[in-house]
Amino acid sequence: MRAPVAPVTITRVQAGHDEESKDLLVVEEPLEIRLGHGPLDGRAEFRLSVTMRTPGHDADLALGFLFTEGIIGMADEVVRVVPCEQVKEEERGNVLRAELRPELMIDPERWHRNFYTTSSCGVCGKSSIDAVHAHCARPLRPWGAVDPESITALPERMREAQTVFRHTGGIHAAALFDRDGALLVLREDVGRHNAVDKVIGAALRDRLPLEECMLLVSGRAGFELVQKCVVAGIPLMAAVGAPSSLAVNLARSAGLSLVGFLRGERFNIYAGSLGSQAP
Amino acid sequence: MRAPVAPVTITRVQAGHDEESKDLLVVEEPLEIRLGHGPLDGRAEFRLSVTMRTPGHDADLALGFLFTEGIIGMADEVVRVVPCEQVKEEERGNVLRAELRPELMIDPERWHRNFYTTSSCGVCGKSSIDAVHAHCARPLRPWGAVDPESITALPERMREAQTVFRHTGGIHAAALFDRDGALLVLREDVGRHNAVDKVIGAALRDRLPLEECMLLVSGRAGFELVQKCVVAGIPLMAAVGAPSSLAVNLARSAGLSLVGFLRGERFNIYAGSLGSQAP
Repeated sequence: MRAPVAPVTITRVQAGHDEESKDLLVVEEPLEIRLGHGPLDGRAEFRLSVTMRTPGHDADLALGFLFTEGIIGMADEVVRVVPCEQVKEEERGNVLRAELRPELMIDPERWHRNFYTTSSCGVCGKSSIDAVHAHCARPLRPWGAVDPESITALPERMREAQTVFRHTGGIHAAALFDRDGALLVLREDVGRHNAVDKVIGAALRDRLPLEECMLLVSGRAGFELVQKCVVAGIPLMAAVGAPSSLAVNLARSAGLSLVGFLRGERFNIYAGSLGSQAP
Repeated sequence: MRAPVAPVTITRVQAGHDEESKDLLVVEEPLEIRLGHGPLDGRAEFRLSVTMRTPGHDADLALGFLFTEGIIGMADEVVRVVPCEQVKEEERGNVLRAELRPELMIDPERWHRNFYTTSSCGVCGKSSIDAVHAHCARPLRPWGAVDPESITALPERMREAQTVFRHTGGIHAAALFDRDGALLVLREDVGRHNAVDKVIGAALRDRLPLEECMLLVSGRAGFELVQKCVVAGIPLMAAVGAPSSLAVNLARSAGLSLVGFLRGERFNIYAGSLGSQAP
């Protein structure tokens, strides 16, 4: 398996003085996800996408990506995710094949239609939001009343579990918590969308009840991350950073509770209600 | 023109108390870039890409994107960038057409080959780096000796000019400086790659000597941003955050001076030399 960090020799400069030093970098490598059937099946294989990711939990990434981008509708449509062996030596570990159940056809039209949500459906915020809704059969379950302290406690719990960040300072994280704020899954990646896909993929694999979970992301809450959260059926998303306009519009129309600028004892509620206004 | 910020009413929660409040969000909207010729030309138009961006300086974004992704080899291959009028009312302002010089053919094969650098050439770090090199005719000019203070002064200069960040706290920035550290161009965007493309597009339009400039980015230095810097011929890139492994490998092989973790009086040199080791 490829490592998530790599050693490097650098020059540290401080107040005009410099010295050679060892450092650890977060690894970034391309991952190609292919869609196919069993290896003896003989049917065509499709090259679905290439994403720059940090190695580790790649099968979770593939499963989460296929689900949140609407390529598959249910996790059990994928039988297994395996490394492709028929690749060059230096590409080994960077090419995965997700194998669908034998009776499922691969329909490039379907994934083309879903995958490029923004380009296939008109180019405005409203059409982007409509595309997500068209794609989500189930409405989100409202999160309901919550104690503010159960929200403000999340970032520290995520940070404690972030091993790669501790060593490199240069990686995004996403974490899934249950209703009591217990950490269920944490994943780190150079790409914020990959960290979210890895978390959701792991939750699908372990059959965690996503509709009863909160998702925390280390950075900002852009449209793409909120989209993944809504498609996965997660009813509450919190971000350490700011949300964008389109992310807030999508959250409001989908019934997602969206928290931003979650820092120390403070946070902002951009969509939904946490029930804290109740008497 | 669409605005870069949007007002919103939110609930602020602090130490368990909450209150309604006004806030400003950074706007995120899709932008479609098309490639064509003059409007009376009658030749086909290609839908090149859709990116989620913050409105503003969209023509710069299109020009920078076409150049850094290798769709065009020189800025003057594009005659002008215009809004497409034949779109739905709600999409107006979100669809641009870059018009090529009449004698230039649009070669979908060429942009397909260049645009998807990672997918068209094998899926490993080395092949990703080779693809960037295959694409850059000119080697970078080494940056040469530089005073550490001229580097540590850059973030504050960029922050002072960041109007959208000041109002929203949720946006990336990229800035171009000359050899003396004077700010030449600053652009903000929800997408870090868009901020860089906007800066490079503006520099191309104004014929700034990119080979004599430094680029500063507000976040991390991933492969994609270093790639854009190398293709644009900018010899020094500095990031407030951490670089990735592949970004450092590309910088070293391309002769780009790469600075990371630029905070206060400190920074790390990950690639190249700033000449500060000289006696």
